[in-house]
Amino acid sequence: MQCRITFSALDIQRPTIFLDQSKALHNLHRMVEKAKSNNLLLRPHFKTHQSAALGRWFSQSGIRQITVSSVKMAQYFANAGWDDITIAFPVNILEWDSIVTLARRIRIQVVVSSPHVIEELPASDVPIGVFVKLDVGTHRTGFDPANRVVLERVVKQIRQRSDLELKGFLAHAGHSYSCRDRSCIQRVHDESKKIMLDVKSVYSEQIPQLVISVGDTPTCSVAEDWSGIDEIRPGNFIFYDLTQLKIGACSLEDIAVVLACPVVAKHDQRKTIVVYGGGIHLSKEGLPWGGKTIYGLPVELDGMTWSMPDEYSHVMSLSQEHGIIQASERLYDRVGLGDLLGILPVHSCMTCDLMKSYTLSDQSVKSMMPV
Amino acid sequence: MQCRITFSALDIQRPTIFLDQSKALHNLHRMVEKAKSNNLLLRPHFKTHQSAALGRWFSQSGIRQITVSSVKMAQYFANAGWDDITIAFPVNILEWDSIVTLARRIRIQVVVSSPHVIEELPASDVPIGVFVKLDVGTHRTGFDPANRVVLERVVKQIRQRSDLELKGFLAHAGHSYSCRDRSCIQRVHDESKKIMLDVKSVYSEQIPQLVISVGDTPTCSVAEDWSGIDEIRPGNFIFYDLTQLKIGACSLEDIAVVLACPVVAKHDQRKTIVVYGGGIHLSKEGLPWGGKTIYGLPVELDGMTWSMPDEYSHVMSLSQEHGIIQASERLYDRVGLGDLLGILPVHSCMTCDLMKSYTLSDQSVKSMMPV
Repeated sequence: MQCRITFSALDIQRPTIFLDQSKALHNLHRMVEKAKSNNLLLRPHFKTHQSAALGRWFSQSGIRQITVSSVKMAQYFANAGWDDITIAFPVNILEWDSIVTLARRIRIQVVVSSPHVIEELPASDVPIGVFVKLDVGTHRTGFDPANRVVLERVVKQIRQRSDLELKGFLAHAGHSYSCRDRSCIQRVHDESKKIMLDVKSVYSEQIPQLVISVGDTPTCSVAEDWSGIDEIRPGNFIFYDLTQLKIGACSLEDIAVVLACPVVAKHDQRKTIVVYGGGIHLSKEGLPWGGKTIYGLPVELDGMTWSMPDEYSHVMSLSQEHGIIQASERLYDRVGLGDLLGILPVHSCMTCDLMKSYTLSDQSVKSMMPV
Repeated sequence: MQCRITFSALDIQRPTIFLDQSKALHNLHRMVEKAKSNNLLLRPHFKTHQSAALGRWFSQSGIRQITVSSVKMAQYFANAGWDDITIAFPVNILEWDSIVTLARRIRIQVVVSSPHVIEELPASDVPIGVFVKLDVGTHRTGFDPANRVVLERVVKQIRQRSDLELKGFLAHAGHSYSCRDRSCIQRVHDESKKIMLDVKSVYSEQIPQLVISVGDTPTCSVAEDWSGIDEIRPGNFIFYDLTQLKIGACSLEDIAVVLACPVVAKHDQRKTIVVYGGGIHLSKEGLPWGGKTIYGLPVELDGMTWSMPDEYSHVMSLSQEHGIIQASERLYDRVGLGDLLGILPVHSCMTCDLMKSYTLSDQSVKSMMPV
């Protein structure tokens, strides 16, 4: 039996992100409540959605401060009316002039992640906030919190400059992404919190308004004890994805975006479905899943809503424009050429960055930051 | 010793593709010559560069027919003056109206890759060329060439329709990408050529103008015997990349694009260099390389040209905006904060699709198809 999915009003012909607004708002409100009840400032990371239109959902929830991952993104959201932005990326000396220009209009915080950066930054004629990034175990970037000599040196360098204001210490416990259950996420949180609070205890007297800022969606979704932490910066939680599901940071029902893909070929003998939706739509990020690497999970669409995936189907490979789905018998039989099939993404930040717009259930289209 | 790389005229602050025009033109002219000497029509795949400006290099080399991977790309290149385009992707029923509209202006060929497609395509008021895709071993999509009953059925279906013109059979020997040397590529070529010529022998009398079209950069770069083949559709050869290098399809010197990335942090103990240049710039496509998975190889930039990579440095991981480079002692010492470091891409098609423009050595910027 073929189950042709038709769209009376919407005319979808190409890969398109469907965004379930009620799921996203539920995810947002839950995080807002969590921050409130733990006395945390929620400074959400906007790199996930990159959309001024979606940003308004956050401001309607009382959010006034945000995090971005590039100067360009800071400029985009400043133009959309946001006036307190942390650029959570190692400050790029080559963009210093652009940062100073932005800091003349709004409150800007930058991040220093390794030695010798401060002496390379020319003087600014407006104050710029600085966070010192600490490496709490991810080993991507940041200062070693155990190396107090080096840490003290950068703190001094910042405090000696009248144009820079030391805001505090910032971390991203990205190693929570190698977790596979909630207890592991909890452990990562406990360990990184301990590191941050140790540093806080050293500097809180010298720097009275010191902010301890931590991020990452897994720990912000799972951990309950936030005593001593001042600010959280999760981003992905607004949409979640299969990576967060696998980690244990969300449920399947929480995932708020799906890539709707036209079915363009079917191969009976292999039970593979070929969709228009490839690496330039989903991204080439794979996820270890039941002994395989998958690039998404197919779900059936019913208008703008979607089913839960079955356990025997997955996106097995991606070319530039093709997605190849190994389908269960049931899915294979239900889906026909010219249908739209949904793909739950491995990493929603990457998929959204590629797609550049969202289609909502009211069939409005929300754009993202242009290239 | 730090070796600060400065750009007198160019003001590069963010990840930027540097395109070496002389290397790209050398790659292009070599393929044009190869096609000419083998009596092949070169119908290059424009999905790699996606740029009307770069397309003019091809037309200046005598190219009149091209291949694209989407209807949108066909529309873009039709607007740029191209009037004979094969959309080498399983024909998407949902875009049929757009295809017909395009076929009223220019010559369009579509590809049928699995059964039951033809009966779903409404009648067109202009002729549309059709290629039947054969699966020569990649098992991504296409008809099984050994299943002559199914093949004969689709051929008949096409020939029964006055609006569709059967152009021939098309294949993409994508399994050449699992090769690791030239002899393997040669074997893939020989096998797929045999399959294609077998089918040609069956249909060449019934269909006198029958075209056998094969593609993929590895076989087009390596194989020498093309007897019986009518058309080739390589795309990546204009830039090449580390994947092609690993396969044995190009040399390091042939790679014509590099991603210039600002250095934003350095970590002495791990000898890692953090650059502004992550998964949204390079793509998350990894490549097995000496027992590791790499995401690019760093090279030193000298103005708009670059060195060869050293064997002890590689891009070890990518986040959304960060690239983490495990650096040799020498590279680590030579590169400073605020320098630009080049990254040779794993897959140039994916990197270019993300970056959307090229900076040439004359410092002009060539744009690509918009999102």
